[in-house]
Amino acid sequence: MTSAPWNRNRLTAKLGIEYPIIQGPFGGFSSQRLTAAVSNFGGLGSFGANSLTPEAIKDVIAEIRSLTSKPFAMNLWVSMEDAGARTSDENAFKRSLAALAAHFTALGAPYPIYKPFSPIRVEDQVRVLLDTKVPVFSFVFGIPPKEILQECRSKNIVTIGVATTPDEAIALEQAGVDAIAASGFEAGGHRGSFLRSAEDSLTGTFSLIPQIVDVVDVPVIAAGGIGDARGAIAALALGAEGLQMGTAFLTYEGSGASRLHRETLLRKYVRTGLTRGFTGRLARGVRNHLMEDLNQKGTEILPYPLQRGIIRNLTAAAEAAGRPDLMPMWAGQGANLPSCTDVPAFLNDLVQEISEIAGPVVEWSASRRHKHSNS
Amino acid sequence: MTSAPWNRNRLTAKLGIEYPIIQGPFGGFSSQRLTAAVSNFGGLGSFGANSLTPEAIKDVIAEIRSLTSKPFAMNLWVSMEDAGARTSDENAFKRSLAALAAHFTALGAPYPIYKPFSPIRVEDQVRVLLDTKVPVFSFVFGIPPKEILQECRSKNIVTIGVATTPDEAIALEQAGVDAIAASGFEAGGHRGSFLRSAEDSLTGTFSLIPQIVDVVDVPVIAAGGIGDARGAIAALALGAEGLQMGTAFLTYEGSGASRLHRETLLRKYVRTGLTRGFTGRLARGVRNHLMEDLNQKGTEILPYPLQRGIIRNLTAAAEAAGRPDLMPMWAGQGANLPSCTDVPAFLNDLVQEISEIAGPVVEWSASRRHKHSNS
Repeated sequence: MTSAPWNRNRLTAKLGIEYPIIQGPFGGFSSQRLTAAVSNFGGLGSFGANSLTPEAIKDVIAEIRSLTSKPFAMNLWVSMEDAGARTSDENAFKRSLAALAAHFTALGAPYPIYKPFSPIRVEDQVRVLLDTKVPVFSFVFGIPPKEILQECRSKNIVTIGVATTPDEAIALEQAGVDAIAASGFEAGGHRGSFLRSAEDSLTGTFSLIPQIVDVVDVPVIAAGGIGDARGAIAALALGAEGLQMGTAFLTYEGSGASRLHRETLLRKYVRTGLTRGFTGRLARGVRNHLMEDLNQKGTEILPYPLQRGIIRNLTAAAEAAGRPDLMPMWAGQGANLPSCTDVPAFLNDLVQEISEIAGPVVEWSASRRHKHSNS
Repeated sequence: MTSAPWNRNRLTAKLGIEYPIIQGPFGGFSSQRLTAAVSNFGGLGSFGANSLTPEAIKDVIAEIRSLTSKPFAMNLWVSMEDAGARTSDENAFKRSLAALAAHFTALGAPYPIYKPFSPIRVEDQVRVLLDTKVPVFSFVFGIPPKEILQECRSKNIVTIGVATTPDEAIALEQAGVDAIAASGFEAGGHRGSFLRSAEDSLTGTFSLIPQIVDVVDVPVIAAGGIGDARGAIAALALGAEGLQMGTAFLTYEGSGASRLHRETLLRKYVRTGLTRGFTGRLARGVRNHLMEDLNQKGTEILPYPLQRGIIRNLTAAAEAAGRPDLMPMWAGQGANLPSCTDVPAFLNDLVQEISEIAGPVVEWSASRRHKHSNS
């Protein structure tokens, strides 16, 4: 077979990158260094900015630009609060805190104090991305308003939306996004579902990718459970044109994950689970004492982002006390696959191994897609 | 590259079959015709015999043998009842029935009558498989006693165990099984977990296969979400040497699935969900009215197999009344991928498409395994 290079496709062309390998964003603990390192290699680094103020986002973008001249993605959450966040009162706060009282006491940590909800507006965050003309705007938990997407197009900002079901992929394509990340059940962090509840949208990567590829024409990025070349080739065989890895990068010293978090993932073997307890929204992390407690029936979980506020206080104390059993540690089900400690070395090995076989696989996948769409 | 034929590997050699394609067993509604059709093509047909008496199993084996001279698998459940099945009383029966009362009434169906639990012994079922020397004995929900596995070896009965986690795969290998089916979250029907609860063992196929391949030396069969050639190639890339498909075959007229069940799956687009409500054990099927009802918080679900007994009564009435919304319909998350209506034609197309690319993928996967196990 005489293949075009496997890494030249619609996605790499749109994004202006060398390899269709995307580092998944980490909301809350992204790092400029990691983002820039992945982009400098020729992949697409991403920075999760959802918890930052517009001013902080501006600084982050400037810093990433000082570290790389390559394209990178800034990631935001289209929906920044759940129903009830504005009406949730001090009593609910106290009930939620009660479930964690023993841990605060054990850690000698002060109880967090109730403060009425003060929202960050995604509109203000997006404005910074538009004004600074970031290369790529990726988002989860919904679809930005039409005018925003239009402004992205007119400013040549590439857009990537996240789908957890085929229905969401169709909605994103109809809105005109440039690429769709298909996020399977295995993925670490938050489930970005937006048409149905996250619990009702859990689809394994293996069946999600082909079902999304079958219903949209834009390039699909596979996310969830990909940790090495095997997963990359599998994703390409299933019809994806790009692959996103998150958990694998968490172990890099400059990743933004805490030392305890990194050490836990490097130690292997970890088990992960889903919980609403860490933030109020369903997300995957390492199963530990804290997750088991919060997943007990009857535990009061505040609406996002209020629950996150309480848990942040606990996390700070748990980190200080060296207690990884009492802090959220995001991770996907691929956590036991090889981990990255050196970004260029990890990506170089990955690309080498992918390149041994990806050419014919990509060619087969593309011809297959063509054949089936004509039939 | 000069590859050996992709379909010649340790698994096809052990099983004595042409293609490493396995039709997953359907407990409760398997069909001799489907089993024989897949085996006659050169794959491995399976028959789920867990709900049959030893006498009935003997008849089934004889009939399959009259339809094919090729190897086939008989599938049993190592664990045939859940804790509490023997002590569950008439009051619990009535509470469970109460949740379904409206449906029985709507269907004009008689209420089922409480009968104390009368177990089928798996030991007696296995005896038939051993005495008739079936070619393959596959099993879920645990590991058969040592003497049984020893007798299988001495009689050249190939054994296949099902793992839902890496830990279960290690336990199966230590017990000496010949091959391991890695059953991902996406798979239809029952979750065969046996070391931890099924809820705590949900792992997506995409991350389950490589993690199991990395910890065992016996051939691994990928199961869950595979519906077409893309899934087959992805499974081989992830390190599996065989692939199991179940849902795709349910739409075949001779599959043993009811007409309503087949029609529902052929119509697409279906959504699936997990429930304990259909049988007492966690299983995946089409999300419908009945599943939503049974998944309501507080609904009393009897221990397996008592819940199954109640639901069987409802199913019979729902089928007679043409009400697919009120009966269990097993299906995996690949249900929206292409379906089989003609077994040889479906398998022929599948093998053709796989063969276009599988050679180099299998070679890469094998050399990769070799390289990494030496490093």
